[in-house]
Amino acid sequence: MSDAFHRDCPARMVLDHLTARWAVLVLTALRPGPLRFHELRTKIEGVSEKMLSQTLRTLTRDGFVGRTVIPATPPQVSYALTPLGEGVTEPLQALSDWVRDHADAIVGAQAAYEDARSDG
Amino acid sequence: MSDAFHRDCPARMVLDHLTARWAVLVLTALRPGPLRFHELRTKIEGVSEKMLSQTLRTLTRDGFVGRTVIPATPPQVSYALTPLGEGVTEPLQALSDWVRDHADAIVGAQAAYEDARSDG
Repeated sequence: MSDAFHRDCPARMVLDHLTARWAVLVLTALRPGPLRFHELRTKIEGVSEKMLSQTLRTLTRDGFVGRTVIPATPPQVSYALTPLGEGVTEPLQALSDWVRDHADAIVGAQAAYEDARSDG
Repeated sequence: MSDAFHRDCPARMVLDHLTARWAVLVLTALRPGPLRFHELRTKIEGVSEKMLSQTLRTLTRDGFVGRTVIPATPPQVSYALTPLGEGVTEPLQALSDWVRDHADAIVGAQAAYEDARSDG
């Protein structure tokens, strides 16, 4: 079992970052290749500018995402996975795929749970 | 790419539940076998009674965790992974193992990021 059960373990903090509301989506969105901020915002429906900025900052700080400034007027910023980021998208994508493949079973479980509650 | 990029996709909601603050830890804690509420609280350092209750309720509703009432005085409740829950712990454990195996690289990236900021 992983050290993540312990309160002060760095693994728990990183697991928290990776599983934060938008991090999974940002990391998997960058998997096919680098994107600019507004491209990420378009791809990930419903993320606010503020949350996307915060998520990119945390992922950059943890070494999963790199920022490249493209000299232009105005300067453009591109975000890309680092080798560490590419590594972590593999288990994240596996999780995301699992959820997609089992969505029907989960929605069925939710409906059964609500039915059982309303019968009781 | 998964449907999870779309705002109203059930896969996104389920991914949110699975990656919620405590869900990863609860699901992986139950992997070796069923546990009672207080055993889960002891195993997962730092989780509050309220957050553990909420997490167990969401995971039960999604069909990942089952609740068994053991007739006793007072009645005892045991929590166990369902087959669906056992399935999802595989990609979650892979993610958790990846983080543990790369914790040093990530902590190094964080230190380098802070150094670069304080130099600038």
